[in-house]
Amino acid sequence: MAVAEAAAGTADQLSVRRSNLSLVLRHLRSAGPRSRARIATETGLNKATVSSLVAELVDRGLAKEGDIERGQVGRPGQAVEVDGRVCGLGVELNVDYLALHVLDLRGETVATDRIAIDVPREGPERTLAAMAKLVASAISDVAREGRDVAGVTVAVPGLVETTPGVLRFGPNIGWRETWVADELQARLGDPGCPIRVDNDANLAAVAEFAMGIAAGTPDLVYLTGEVGVGGGVIVGGKLLRGAEGFAGEVGHMAIAPEGHLCGCGRRGCWETVAGLSALLRAVADPGDAVADPSVDLEQRMAEIRRRAELGDGRTLRGLEAVGAGLGLGASMLVNIFNPRVIVLGGFFSLLGDFVLPAMEAQLHDHVIAPALGGCRIERSTFPFTAAARGGAYVVLQTVLADPTSVVRAAIPAGGQAGADGGGP
Amino acid sequence: MAVAEAAAGTADQLSVRRSNLSLVLRHLRSAGPRSRARIATETGLNKATVSSLVAELVDRGLAKEGDIERGQVGRPGQAVEVDGRVCGLGVELNVDYLALHVLDLRGETVATDRIAIDVPREGPERTLAAMAKLVASAISDVAREGRDVAGVTVAVPGLVETTPGVLRFGPNIGWRETWVADELQARLGDPGCPIRVDNDANLAAVAEFAMGIAAGTPDLVYLTGEVGVGGGVIVGGKLLRGAEGFAGEVGHMAIAPEGHLCGCGRRGCWETVAGLSALLRAVADPGDAVADPSVDLEQRMAEIRRRAELGDGRTLRGLEAVGAGLGLGASMLVNIFNPRVIVLGGFFSLLGDFVLPAMEAQLHDHVIAPALGGCRIERSTFPFTAAARGGAYVVLQTVLADPTSVVRAAIPAGGQAGADGGGP
Repeated sequence: MAVAEAAAGTADQLSVRRSNLSLVLRHLRSAGPRSRARIATETGLNKATVSSLVAELVDRGLAKEGDIERGQVGRPGQAVEVDGRVCGLGVELNVDYLALHVLDLRGETVATDRIAIDVPREGPERTLAAMAKLVASAISDVAREGRDVAGVTVAVPGLVETTPGVLRFGPNIGWRETWVADELQARLGDPGCPIRVDNDANLAAVAEFAMGIAAGTPDLVYLTGEVGVGGGVIVGGKLLRGAEGFAGEVGHMAIAPEGHLCGCGRRGCWETVAGLSALLRAVADPGDAVADPSVDLEQRMAEIRRRAELGDGRTLRGLEAVGAGLGLGASMLVNIFNPRVIVLGGFFSLLGDFVLPAMEAQLHDHVIAPALGGCRIERSTFPFTAAARGGAYVVLQTVLADPTSVVRAAIPAGGQAGADGGGP
Repeated sequence: MAVAEAAAGTADQLSVRRSNLSLVLRHLRSAGPRSRARIATETGLNKATVSSLVAELVDRGLAKEGDIERGQVGRPGQAVEVDGRVCGLGVELNVDYLALHVLDLRGETVATDRIAIDVPREGPERTLAAMAKLVASAISDVAREGRDVAGVTVAVPGLVETTPGVLRFGPNIGWRETWVADELQARLGDPGCPIRVDNDANLAAVAEFAMGIAAGTPDLVYLTGEVGVGGGVIVGGKLLRGAEGFAGEVGHMAIAPEGHLCGCGRRGCWETVAGLSALLRAVADPGDAVADPSVDLEQRMAEIRRRAELGDGRTLRGLEAVGAGLGLGASMLVNIFNPRVIVLGGFFSLLGDFVLPAMEAQLHDHVIAPALGGCRIERSTFPFTAAARGGAYVVLQTVLADPTSVVRAAIPAGGQAGADGGGP
């Protein structure tokens, strides 16, 4: 009994310590550099506790000494600030690209990368090898700058079981039951940090809600504009996951009964009239470079835009048809969710000005609430990077929630950690 | 400054008192009758405080003395229990009926009523007069039993602005901008309690989540089976309202482009292939009593069931077609929400066994998650009463959240309040 109580006491102390470390770190991140004395005043913790917490955050590479802070009451104090050493890495696997994004704990972009790859043709083996190469290269680049990657999140287009990181079914890449986390882990050797897997649209919605064009909007629907049309839905400030984590599969709403065959094997799914394949089918003949998956997507979209701006009839009609298809499905989502904003990702964001008029006409035709229930449409400012950004962001959220998840690093005298430093 | 502080201190004390009254009342409601001493132990409040709180709850008619409680450590104490005197009243206005439900604070049904009425033909004036008559009669019946109605909630089929209680648009009854709360208030004279207005499907979903066949299931979609098909969605245990309160308008998803004209003025809305009008069009000729809005709905549904059980081909085909239409739209909701359960209300629940096979076939065809993502279909046990029940329930929730919202009643010596007692 006494032993159990002592253990419980220790557990409580550890949990209080953890929560106070998190409080100070989040305060520094949102409020900016400030002295220990000011942190104490603003958080209500006592000064000795703050000093000890800051020492531990510095020790873990999460905070560092900053400039002398003047202008406050009392004698000037040395400011403490968030250290950008710890990073989160997100990597998105989609039908024809891999995109990577690294954010540091201050929210700044440290690295981005993207390669064109024909995933359905390459298959899991070669695609995951390419992903491992991309991730390993980013981790070592980041390490060379004296930074550590605290975790990797893989965004995939399909039904994900987040624990244990399995892609149950990715219709547009043709993968089933792929243990993405384990497979990537095996190819990276020991990356020195956890690997998570989540749905691409979910992670993109998280990024938009955290730092995008409609950041902070509690009722937000994000739509991926890729071959697939996925939905990431924020309801009352929280991601909609559903009973088993499969919510947001909007691309397979059966809205075009006589439509084309979908990657999922059915006919008439929304993405067959609003996704990238529908657009390419409408605007390009076989052999046209805009439909070549080995060419970077942004370049291909830029070419379609160029043709549209030149007034090419086929291109304009194709964009209009996709806009109408997009609007028809979006009207259902507006009737269902009454969101404040729909954020358009991927190619929708890049070509939005040519897609929006037809989309909005459909919305006005089919939404029952007056003035679309107050919903506006925004084009994402992260066209093909939102999911990778979201992946990086969720890693950092786990660090902010529990700073003790980052192990104490041996920091060299020069203030730079070696490539093998840090990371649990 | 000193005055402001004193006022703030009083406000804090009042708010602490209110929250403790709520705590004790909710504890009594969920845990059952018990002594003051036991309440003190279980809530962590001190005994003197509990005695004072219980005295106030008794004074307000929310709790009462019960039996002597034995079997606990210490001397036997008099138990306190929830008093069923305070009631909530819900009244649902739908296309062809008014339904009323009264619940007491213990959750027991005190009264129910329903009348057949052709609302689109009668219009707001006569319909609201009929509603006022129904409500006034229930309030006075309840008062004769020594009970008080603490609030009235009106459920309406359409877009509602809950403050100030306006039906913006009820497509199937043809009402626009109807100030339901004010109009009912005016017709009731002073009912002595607040009147709220909310969407029928929302209130039904709240009732199902609180006390229905799938009570407590945090990811639940409720579908009304009336002329309209409305959706009430519980996400993570909370009602989905959307940015402006218009969420859940699932009946107007445009899934049948070449379909019948909908009450909203558009073509092809889901409810035109899955709602009651679609069923009646399929199974009945003009003049058939099952399509006569002056006959009670449950009777009409019983007649359709009788024909189906006799194997009438037209009836069976009609039910199958409605089941298929229902399943097609429901598949979209399953792809979008990944709910644990869909609860079928109204005529779907009464005729479910004839509707479900075709519905489930569509679900299996169009849901992308394996095994429907773990979603099951349940038939509501409150066929045409769920919305009125939900209305009564939300009144009681406001009493439980703030017991001081019920004014102190002058209780006669016999323990029965007069008809004019209680109610703020």
